[in-house]
Amino acid sequence: MRIALCQINPTVGDVDGNAAKIAAWIGRARDTGAELAIFPELCIPGYPAEDLYLKPHFLAANVRAVERLAADLAPGITVMVGYAEPAAGGGDHRHAHNSLAVLADGEVQAVYRKNRLPNYSVFDEQRYFIPGDEGGSIDVDGAGVGLTICEDTWAPGPPGQAEADAGAQLIANPSGSPYHRGKGREREEMFGERAREYGTYLAFVNLVGGQDELVFDGQSLLFGPDGSLLARAAQFEEELLIAEVPPAAGAAAPLADPLPDLDEVYGALVLCLRDYVEKNRFGHVGLGISGGIDSALVAMLAVDALGPERVTLVVMPSPHSSDETQADARQIAHNLGTGLIEIEIEPMMDGYAAALEGVLDGLAAENIQARIRGNLMMALSNRHGWLVLTTGNKSEMSVGYATLYGDMAGGFAVIKDVPKTLVYELVERRNARAGRDLVPVAVIERPPSAELRPDQLDSDSLPDYDLLDRILEAYVEQDAGREEMVATGLPGDVVDEVIRLVDRAEYKRRQAAPGIRITPRAFGRDRRLPITNRFGG
Amino acid sequence: MRIALCQINPTVGDVDGNAAKIAAWIGRARDTGAELAIFPELCIPGYPAEDLYLKPHFLAANVRAVERLAADLAPGITVMVGYAEPAAGGGDHRHAHNSLAVLADGEVQAVYRKNRLPNYSVFDEQRYFIPGDEGGSIDVDGAGVGLTICEDTWAPGPPGQAEADAGAQLIANPSGSPYHRGKGREREEMFGERAREYGTYLAFVNLVGGQDELVFDGQSLLFGPDGSLLARAAQFEEELLIAEVPPAAGAAAPLADPLPDLDEVYGALVLCLRDYVEKNRFGHVGLGISGGIDSALVAMLAVDALGPERVTLVVMPSPHSSDETQADARQIAHNLGTGLIEIEIEPMMDGYAAALEGVLDGLAAENIQARIRGNLMMALSNRHGWLVLTTGNKSEMSVGYATLYGDMAGGFAVIKDVPKTLVYELVERRNARAGRDLVPVAVIERPPSAELRPDQLDSDSLPDYDLLDRILEAYVEQDAGREEMVATGLPGDVVDEVIRLVDRAEYKRRQAAPGIRITPRAFGRDRRLPITNRFGG
Repeated sequence: MRIALCQINPTVGDVDGNAAKIAAWIGRARDTGAELAIFPELCIPGYPAEDLYLKPHFLAANVRAVERLAADLAPGITVMVGYAEPAAGGGDHRHAHNSLAVLADGEVQAVYRKNRLPNYSVFDEQRYFIPGDEGGSIDVDGAGVGLTICEDTWAPGPPGQAEADAGAQLIANPSGSPYHRGKGREREEMFGERAREYGTYLAFVNLVGGQDELVFDGQSLLFGPDGSLLARAAQFEEELLIAEVPPAAGAAAPLADPLPDLDEVYGALVLCLRDYVEKNRFGHVGLGISGGIDSALVAMLAVDALGPERVTLVVMPSPHSSDETQADARQIAHNLGTGLIEIEIEPMMDGYAAALEGVLDGLAAENIQARIRGNLMMALSNRHGWLVLTTGNKSEMSVGYATLYGDMAGGFAVIKDVPKTLVYELVERRNARAGRDLVPVAVIERPPSAELRPDQLDSDSLPDYDLLDRILEAYVEQDAGREEMVATGLPGDVVDEVIRLVDRAEYKRRQAAPGIRITPRAFGRDRRLPITNRFGG
Repeated sequence: MRIALCQINPTVGDVDGNAAKIAAWIGRARDTGAELAIFPELCIPGYPAEDLYLKPHFLAANVRAVERLAADLAPGITVMVGYAEPAAGGGDHRHAHNSLAVLADGEVQAVYRKNRLPNYSVFDEQRYFIPGDEGGSIDVDGAGVGLTICEDTWAPGPPGQAEADAGAQLIANPSGSPYHRGKGREREEMFGERAREYGTYLAFVNLVGGQDELVFDGQSLLFGPDGSLLARAAQFEEELLIAEVPPAAGAAAPLADPLPDLDEVYGALVLCLRDYVEKNRFGHVGLGISGGIDSALVAMLAVDALGPERVTLVVMPSPHSSDETQADARQIAHNLGTGLIEIEIEPMMDGYAAALEGVLDGLAAENIQARIRGNLMMALSNRHGWLVLTTGNKSEMSVGYATLYGDMAGGFAVIKDVPKTLVYELVERRNARAGRDLVPVAVIERPPSAELRPDQLDSDSLPDYDLLDRILEAYVEQDAGREEMVATGLPGDVVDEVIRLVDRAEYKRRQAAPGIRITPRAFGRDRRLPITNRFGG
C-alpha cells in the first residue's frame, strides 16, 4: 500500500480555506499513486480552535466542509481528515467529538472518535470533546488500517493495541502535537515502543505551523512493526511524504535529518512568528532596538521570518543610552538590511517632568522612559498597521524585570519563552551560520543593562543569569519547591528571592502579549497560577 | 441534630491562615452546641488555586493543615473541610482528588472524593483532580449524613441519590459555586428539586469572597425533604448559620432575604474589588476620572469597598476635555469624599508632537492622549504603591473601544463584565439608595464621549448601546451565530459589524487586566478564543 503523510499547515477557523488546501493535497497524493492519504488531527476546523468548538454554527460549517470533500473525492484513494464531529445528546456543555472522517468513493465511510482527551499542560480537550470509547479499522486495498488520534497512542493499550490485535497492519495516528525543545526525540522513542508493542506499522502525521502561542513542528514519522524508523518528514515545513507499507524493495522513504538543537529552537521561533504575522494578515512588523542582545535576536528572527523589507527597527535613545549601544543598534539594522527609525525621547521625558513637578517629586523616571518608548511603538503601529514585537526574554518575564506598557507593549512576544542564557546561544549560532557578525560581538560581550539610569546593570537587581536560569527551570518548569531546590545545591537566599519575584510578577505576565512556547512549560495556557495567591512557592 | 453551615472567606494559597480561620469557626460552632460543622469546598488550599494543585509541596502543606485541625479538634463535634487530597498512582499529571475530610475525635474519620468534576465555563477541575467513584456517608449522633461536593448534586442520580437510598437523612454539599447575575435563583430551584428527589435534608455550604475574576456569593442554603427552603445565609458576607435538622418546633432557622437584582450585582462588584485589594495587600487604589459614567461607577464601587480615604481620583484634562466634564469629575470626588489629583496632559502631548514631527505626520493623537494618562496613572502607582483600577465596561471591551496601555492600563478592571446599559442602572440605583446625587445627573444624561477629539461621541463609532448590548449578549454570552441573531430581528448590517469588531479585539482583551465576572459568560477564563482565528462569527 502506498500512503501519503500529508503534513499541512491549516489556519484556525478558516474552514473553507483548510478544506481547499486539503482537496489540493489529495490531488497531489493521488498523482503519486497513493491509495491512502492521512491528514492531521482537526485539520478542517484548525487546532486548537478553543471555544470555537463550542459554537454550533462553527461545527455545522466544518461538517459541511467534510461532506463536500467526500462528495468531490475522485475514486481510487482513501482519505483521513480530522474534524469536530457534532455530538447528539443535549444537556452537556460539550457538543462534539474529536473525530477522524474516512472518505472514499464519494462518501464518509467511517468515523473514528478520539478516546483519550488530554487535559493537562496546554491541552483542554475535555472542555470541548466527548471521548469515544471504541477503536476503528478500515480496509485499504486489502490491508487493515487501525484508527487513532494523537494521545490515543501515547500510552500502551487500546484503542491502538485492540486494533492491532484485531488484525490491523498499519495504525494511523493523525496528530496535533505541539513542539517544545527536544520533543522530537521523545516522540520517536515513544512511537518506536508503541509500534513494537502493536507489532504493526505506525504512521504519525503531525500538523505544522504556528497558532498563537503554540508551534507545531511537523516531523511526521513512519515506523515498522519492529519499532524501526522508516520515514521522517521535515521540521517546520509542509511536506507530502510518500511511503510504501511494507517498504518496496530498493525504494527507501524520505528520512529528513532532525535539526541540531539550537537550529531547531530557532526554526520554531521563525515559523511561529511568521505564521502569527501571516495568519493575522499583518504586512509589516516593528520593534524597538536598544543595542542589547534580546532585541538583536528578535530582529534576526523577524528578518528570517519575513524578510528585511517587512521589518523596521526603531532606536529610541534617552540621555542614559550610551553611544556604543546606539551605534550597535544602527549596525544591526544595517547588517540585516531592515528599515531604521530614530526618535530621541528626551523631549517627552521633559514633558512628563514638567507636568509632574509638585505632584510626583522624586519620581523614579525609569518606568516613564520605558513607557514613552512603548507609546512611540504603538503610535507607529496605529499609523502604519504594524505588528509591534516585544523583546523580553523568559528570565525577565519570570522575575518581572520589565515595564508593563513599556517594553512589554506590543502584540507578540517572540522570545518570552527563551531564557536569557539561550538568547546568547541563539545569537552566536545565527552569527556562525551567517559566517559573519550579523550582531556585533560587542552586543554579545557587553554586560546586560536596561539603560534606564546611569551605569545601570541587570546584575544590580538580579542574580547572575546562569544561576537565575537554573532556579527558574526548577521552579517554573518542574514545579520544584524551595527545599527540593536547595537540596540540589542551589543557594537558599537566592532561591527565596527568585520565588518571591516570580510569584509577584504574575500580574504582569497576565497582561503580557502572547509569545512562542519552546520549553516544556511556558507562561500562559501552560502554567495557570492565580494572581491572588499567598502560598509563596 | 444541630448543624453549622460555615460560610467562610478563605484566601487562595494561605493554607495556614485558612486553617486558623477554620479552627476559630469550629470553636464558634461548638459554642452554639452544633454537632456538625460544614465548611465549603477546598477551603484549606483555597479555590480555585489553579496550578498550585499540581505542586506536590503545596499538597503536602494542605494535608498537614488538615491533620493538625483533626488533632486539635475538641470532642463533641464532627467537622467537614474541603482539601486537595494527594493521590497515589503515578504516571498521570494529576496528583490529587477534590476531597472532603471528616474530622472527629482527634482524627480524620473519613474522606469523600468528588465524583463529578466540572470542566466547562470557568472550571478546569479535570486538569487538577482525579474523580472519585463512590459515595460516602457518616453517622452524626445516630443520623446518616451523605457526602457530596458541589457539582455532584447538580444533576440527578449518584452519589447523592445513592447515599439517600442507603438511608442518609441529610446530604451535605460543601461548594465553591461562583456568582453570576441571577445564579441564586437557579441554585434554589435546582437544590429544591434535588432535595425532593433524594427525600432528604440538603445543606449547600458555599464559599464567599473574591478570587481574581471570580466572586463567590455565599448564600448557603438548607432544604427539607419536600424541597422547601428552610434557611438561607447572607450574600457577599461570611456567616455562621445554625439550624436544627429536623427543625425544632418554634425555632426557625435564619432566612436572609436575597438582594434585589441591581443591589446584588453591586454587592458582587464591591466584595470582589475589596478582596482583590485586601488579599493582594494593597493599601490604596487610584483611578482616572473623566466626568463620564464608567469612571463614576468605579469610583462609587471603590469607596463602598474600601472607604473614601483609601481612594484617590485623578483628573487628567486635555484641551479636548470640556469644562462640564471636569467639573463633574471634581464634584464626584467631593461627593464621595476621596482624594483628588489634577494633572494637565497638554505639556506631554506637546512633547510627543515635537518629537514625532517628520516621523509621524498626521498622527492620530487620540491614542497618545489615552496612553499619556495611562503612564501618569502607572507613575502614581509606582510611586505610592497604589493599585490602579481601570474603568472600561463590557460593551467597550467587547468591541475594542478602548486604548491598550491607555485607559486599559491598570491592575484590576472592576466593571469589565458590566454592559454599558447596566452601568447606568447601577449608578442610578446607587444614587437612589444614597438619597442624593452622588453622581451628578448631568453625568447620567450627557451623551457618552471619549473626549479624545473635539465634539466626539461614542455614537460616531458604535451602534446605540441598547442595540449593541442586545447583540453582545447573543453573540458573546450565548454563542449565537449571525443567522440566529438576524432571525430574532436584529439588523444584519449591525450584527456583521459587531461580530467583526468583537473578533478583532481579542488581542486587546488578552492584555486586559483581570476583572469581576457578573454575567454567565465573562471574557477571560470563561470565553477562550484564539487570537489567530479566521472564522468570523
